[in-house]
Amino acid sequence: MIRVPIQLRYSDYDERGHVNNAVYLTYFELGRVAAWRAVAGDDTTPPAFVVAQARIDYRSPALLGEPLVVEVRTGEVRSKAWTWTYRVVQEADGRLIAEGETTQVAYDYAANRSMEIPAAMRAGLERMRDEAEGVRR
Amino acid sequence: MIRVPIQLRYSDYDERGHVNNAVYLTYFELGRVAAWRAVAGDDTTPPAFVVAQARIDYRSPALLGEPLVVEVRTGEVRSKAWTWTYRVVQEADGRLIAEGETTQVAYDYAANRSMEIPAAMRAGLERMRDEAEGVRR
Amino acid sequence: MIRVPIQLRYSDYDERGHVNNAVYLTYFELGRVAAWRAVAGDDTTPPAFVVAQARIDYRSPALLGEPLVVEVRTGEVRSKAWTWTYRVVQEADGRLIAEGETTQVAYDYAANRSMEIPAAMRAGLERMRDEAEGVRR
Amino acid sequence: MIRVPIQLRYSDYDERGHVNNAVYLTYFELGRVAAWRAVAGDDTTPPAFVVAQARIDYRSPALLGEPLVVEVRTGEVRSKAWTWTYRVVQEADGRLIAEGETTQVAYDYAANRSMEIPAAMRAGLERMRDEAEGVRR
Repeated sequence: MIRVPIQLRYSDYDERGHVNNAVYLTYFELGRVAAWRAVAGDDTTPPAFVVAQARIDYRSPALLGEPLVVEVRTGEVRSKAWTWTYRVVQEADGRLIAEGETTQVAYDYAANRSMEIPAAMRAGLERMRDEAEGVRR
Repeated sequence: MIRVPIQLRYSDYDERGHVNNAVYLTYFELGRVAAWRAVAGDDTTPPAFVVAQARIDYRSPALLGEPLVVEVRTGEVRSKAWTWTYRVVQEADGRLIAEGETTQVAYDYAANRSMEIPAAMRAGLERMRDEAEGVRR
Repeated sequence: MIRVPIQLRYSDYDERGHVNNAVYLTYFELGRVAAWRAVAGDDTTPPAFVVAQARIDYRSPALLGEPLVVEVRTGEVRSKAWTWTYRVVQEADGRLIAEGETTQVAYDYAANRSMEIPAAMRAGLERMRDEAEGVRR
Repeated sequence: MIRVPIQLRYSDYDERGHVNNAVYLTYFELGRVAAWRAVAGDDTTPPAFVVAQARIDYRSPALLGEPLVVEVRTGEVRSKAWTWTYRVVQEADGRLIAEGETTQVAYDYAANRSMEIPAAMRAGLERMRDEAEGVRR
């Protein structure tokens, strides 16, 4: 599991004092960037995927000042695509704020087409998934 | 069907020159605000719902300078909740850029709890849904 | 003068129900994109400048639901740089919400260095400035 | 001096791979929130000021992946207003990315009007300013 504390911005909040709905996808993205680094094994390999789908369940509003963290786990790994699942958690009281999933398709940007997940990438995803299970239990 | 042309902002684009993934939820929101006005029948009634879930399918990247429009249709209307479905379309060539759905739960902000969809609101949702079907066929 | 009505986004507002301070630079940018099109004489010439400085005076908070428009005028035109001045105005009651200025430096992106303002660009800027004065009086 | 490392978001970058002009005001805001906590002496006192003016000088574009930090110093302290100055610096090579200033006016939100800077707040601002000078020399 990848765990990224979120640096909240005042502009993330709407006029109810809640984090705006759309901002959670940006929080997921913070986690995804860290997850990709873990899979690639370094900080500089550019992402070799496109996001094909995203889903969010809003569980509890996050209020101004609450510390938040985003957790990412690898879900299903198929031949060309895989899922990452996310949980945004209030760090002090452990409350679940939002959870969701994105589906990534392996993408060859040079050839401009989707591709089978390369072996090294698959190994990185599976390593991340197995660690995730280790952490959960 | 509600149709809202989107005023694009330079900051919506990422370093590939594509609209950033997270921004589509903001485009859906532009449509949702207009849909709510159509349901409420005026411009001033505050939203009486919370968004419980959102889903996006990314179909084709939107490039810098492409004109976009968001369309909203009413989907299923249940006792306490309903769905709105969205399509973001390139206005010049009709290309589908993204589509998705949000689930809204009727919410009484004064009592701070979910509620049955009030009769007038249900009538507005059904009117919007029936018009949508009229437009589609 | 260039005048661009702003499509407000719910995420522009902070928890006081005011447009967030930082968002005004995005509104200025909406005006700047339109001003550049007027100067270039078409919609497709990419910007041949960098923004070197920005200044904003916040005059009155913009509240949720208030219609806003951004106005841009050409200020001083020097050999390599020029200023655009901005006013964000509440469209219904004419209230001044914010005003400011940005300084642009003509930039040759191919050569990666600043340049003298080319003659056609200078003519466009002066045309815009003179029209601005015409509108003001 | 207050120093806040910035958690960069992919959506901060524009299609040139540079941090978008408007986002710097959000970075200043991250610094300002921390500066206010230092002045107030705790994390919970709500801000007792409005931002009246902001100015930014763009010095060098920040590229995708560069680590950034924002520094805040107290500038001039007058009877009702004070300035904070900002520097956004590339943390690895020390390059100056942007610098600027905001002017704050002490504000009594209960009475809805500006006010003289209260004594405790003035002491906090002067303490922060003196520390800043200590750090600089």
